[in-house]
Amino acid sequence: MIQVSEALAVVAENSSKMPAQKIPVGKALGYVLAETLYSPISMPPFRQSAMDGYAFIRSEKHQYDVVSSSQAGDHSNIKLKENEAVRIFTGAFVPDNADTVVMQEHVMANEKSILITNMPTQFANVRAKGEQIKKDEVVFEANTLITPAAIGFLACLGITEITVYKKPKVAILVTGNELVKPGKKLPKGKIYESNSVMLKAALQTIGIKKTKVFKVKDNLKATKKALKEILPKYDIVLISGGISVGDYDFVQEALIENGVEELFYKINQKPGKPIFFGRKSETLVFALPGNPASSLTNFYVYVYPAIKNRMGFAEIHLPKMIRKLNAEIANTSGKTLFLKALYDETHVTVLDGQSSAMLNTFATANSLLIVPDDVEKLKKGEFVTLLPIN
Amino acid sequence: MIQVSEALAVVAENSSKMPAQKIPVGKALGYVLAETLYSPISMPPFRQSAMDGYAFIRSEKHQYDVVSSSQAGDHSNIKLKENEAVRIFTGAFVPDNADTVVMQEHVMANEKSILITNMPTQFANVRAKGEQIKKDEVVFEANTLITPAAIGFLACLGITEITVYKKPKVAILVTGNELVKPGKKLPKGKIYESNSVMLKAALQTIGIKKTKVFKVKDNLKATKKALKEILPKYDIVLISGGISVGDYDFVQEALIENGVEELFYKINQKPGKPIFFGRKSETLVFALPGNPASSLTNFYVYVYPAIKNRMGFAEIHLPKMIRKLNAEIANTSGKTLFLKALYDETHVTVLDGQSSAMLNTFATANSLLIVPDDVEKLKKGEFVTLLPIN
Repeated sequence: MIQVSEALAVVAENSSKMPAQKIPVGKALGYVLAETLYSPISMPPFRQSAMDGYAFIRSEKHQYDVVSSSQAGDHSNIKLKENEAVRIFTGAFVPDNADTVVMQEHVMANEKSILITNMPTQFANVRAKGEQIKKDEVVFEANTLITPAAIGFLACLGITEITVYKKPKVAILVTGNELVKPGKKLPKGKIYESNSVMLKAALQTIGIKKTKVFKVKDNLKATKKALKEILPKYDIVLISGGISVGDYDFVQEALIENGVEELFYKINQKPGKPIFFGRKSETLVFALPGNPASSLTNFYVYVYPAIKNRMGFAEIHLPKMIRKLNAEIANTSGKTLFLKALYDETHVTVLDGQSSAMLNTFATANSLLIVPDDVEKLKKGEFVTLLPIN
Repeated sequence: MIQVSEALAVVAENSSKMPAQKIPVGKALGYVLAETLYSPISMPPFRQSAMDGYAFIRSEKHQYDVVSSSQAGDHSNIKLKENEAVRIFTGAFVPDNADTVVMQEHVMANEKSILITNMPTQFANVRAKGEQIKKDEVVFEANTLITPAAIGFLACLGITEITVYKKPKVAILVTGNELVKPGKKLPKGKIYESNSVMLKAALQTIGIKKTKVFKVKDNLKATKKALKEILPKYDIVLISGGISVGDYDFVQEALIENGVEELFYKINQKPGKPIFFGRKSETLVFALPGNPASSLTNFYVYVYPAIKNRMGFAEIHLPKMIRKLNAEIANTSGKTLFLKALYDETHVTVLDGQSSAMLNTFATANSLLIVPDDVEKLKKGEFVTLLPIN
């Protein structure tokens, strides 16, 4: 049995980056750049007006003849005389010899001329060519996450394709003779199988959309056969169930016989102590507890960073938060606790119903509050660390 | 021109809830419940062992004969005698007349009998029937967001279909003669069109996956015709561009002629002052600035809560955060500022490059820092409010 911090380090060390692939920018949301990108153009590509107004050569004069007009998209490079101005709109090309734009609110105008009532400083309201980025400058470093703003920026530079890390293909293997598919009648002694659909949804929250679910009987032969088929085809395999003390033997044997190297089994934490992590070649295997809340806790704490590492994220763990504790917490277990909690802008409250089988508490929670194994008491008002979820 | 708080109130008041629809639980991630749900079963559906161990009738005795075994999924309701125990596994049915389970770590066992070395209290390690939820109790109230944990909980109750609010259908109408499609050669005076792909990605982050983009020429006739076609078919229409002072006339006219009621135009903020919000029947229309960073700011501040309101969310605004400011901010504009900023666990830093045209800053930011219009200075070390993004 290892500590949480050791387990996290083992996961980070053993989850390699996925191969790279080219994809269209419009489909790149949530992917991570596998290359450093350089700009094919300067942005703006020409001197642009930042306002609706008039472009002119700044001097002591206040009155100018309006000799032309420049809409966004135009490129009439008129050569202005000292007493001339061009009607101009936001984003439009500023004629080469104009140096200043006065906003329309600061002039009095008739059809032919303007009187500047509020003289701008020289170069005012003109965006320099390449002000945002110059040709061949770095757009984004490798390992940048592609956000909506990043997509917008790439598109405005005319970039249509980028190289990103592939998303891992994930398989979920469900074991458990007690499990019945929701929608069917529930025989005595059985329960509905809920972990696969829950884990599929959790995977969707990090952009893993297609997850294949395999169901096998609770025995060595079936588990061995399923793993043999699954391991070469997937990048991450989540086994749900078959990992608590009574069941573990055959899952472990099936993994070993399929050449999966054990990296850890059991972590000094609550809930979610029984978890196996192993690897065969680049494929990662997590065997998660059958208890739904334990399973989801371990998903957020261990599977999530493994996937983010494989996807090339610079920061792989859930972003931690600090909040003030609303009520005392005791921890006599000697284990790291992950408590379902609800935080607001400043404080955090631990929810009732922390049992590892209780998913309804998890559905109400927006975070897991971490109580370290060596901390016996957290006082009301103390600052504590949370992992935000959902 | 109205204040930010008034604009937010107008958006909230005018965005009605979408109609409800039934969908499979497995596809419900990110939807919001339109009904209060009651449990069809008790969970657990029977008394369950919480441990791998032995079920027995607790007494003064320490030695018991092991007469049977109960795996998860079994239902052998053996009637135990006082000196008998059943080998039992986590999640398995506890025979009706057993009252206690001892975990296997607390016994010495041979094939036929056990000696309890560490006697549990009566009822220990037995999960009561309905401990988590009883038949006909409320599972989730209406307006609950469906998270991975919620999906797991619904599935474990055998629920396969739920009634949720539909997601709105969104159209993006792009105007601007200066715009060229990325991938094509960029003629002088033109820029690449980037707002549609950026807004599509921003919509994806709230689960709006299919967004139709329409492009029209910068004139009244084309805009009017496009709006006439789009308005009856979509729940939300985003117009990109055509809203700054020089362009506004024809967009406004096209909207009015199509029966769109103006609810506000221009907000006392920076960036993103030029924004139109209107409504025709239940369809909402936002005309956003052409400047990419202004457009995305207004998306997060106004469009995002409108969509969340239509989707039935109980809380529609971005969750606010409080952080300590790393450097002084001056605000002499008299406007509310939304500054691209980067926060960590405790502090926040305003990024360089706040111009409304600069998307690269937005791509680096993880939040918008709000400086209220009536605050002239925020001091270093002061607590400030952020809207987290991405």
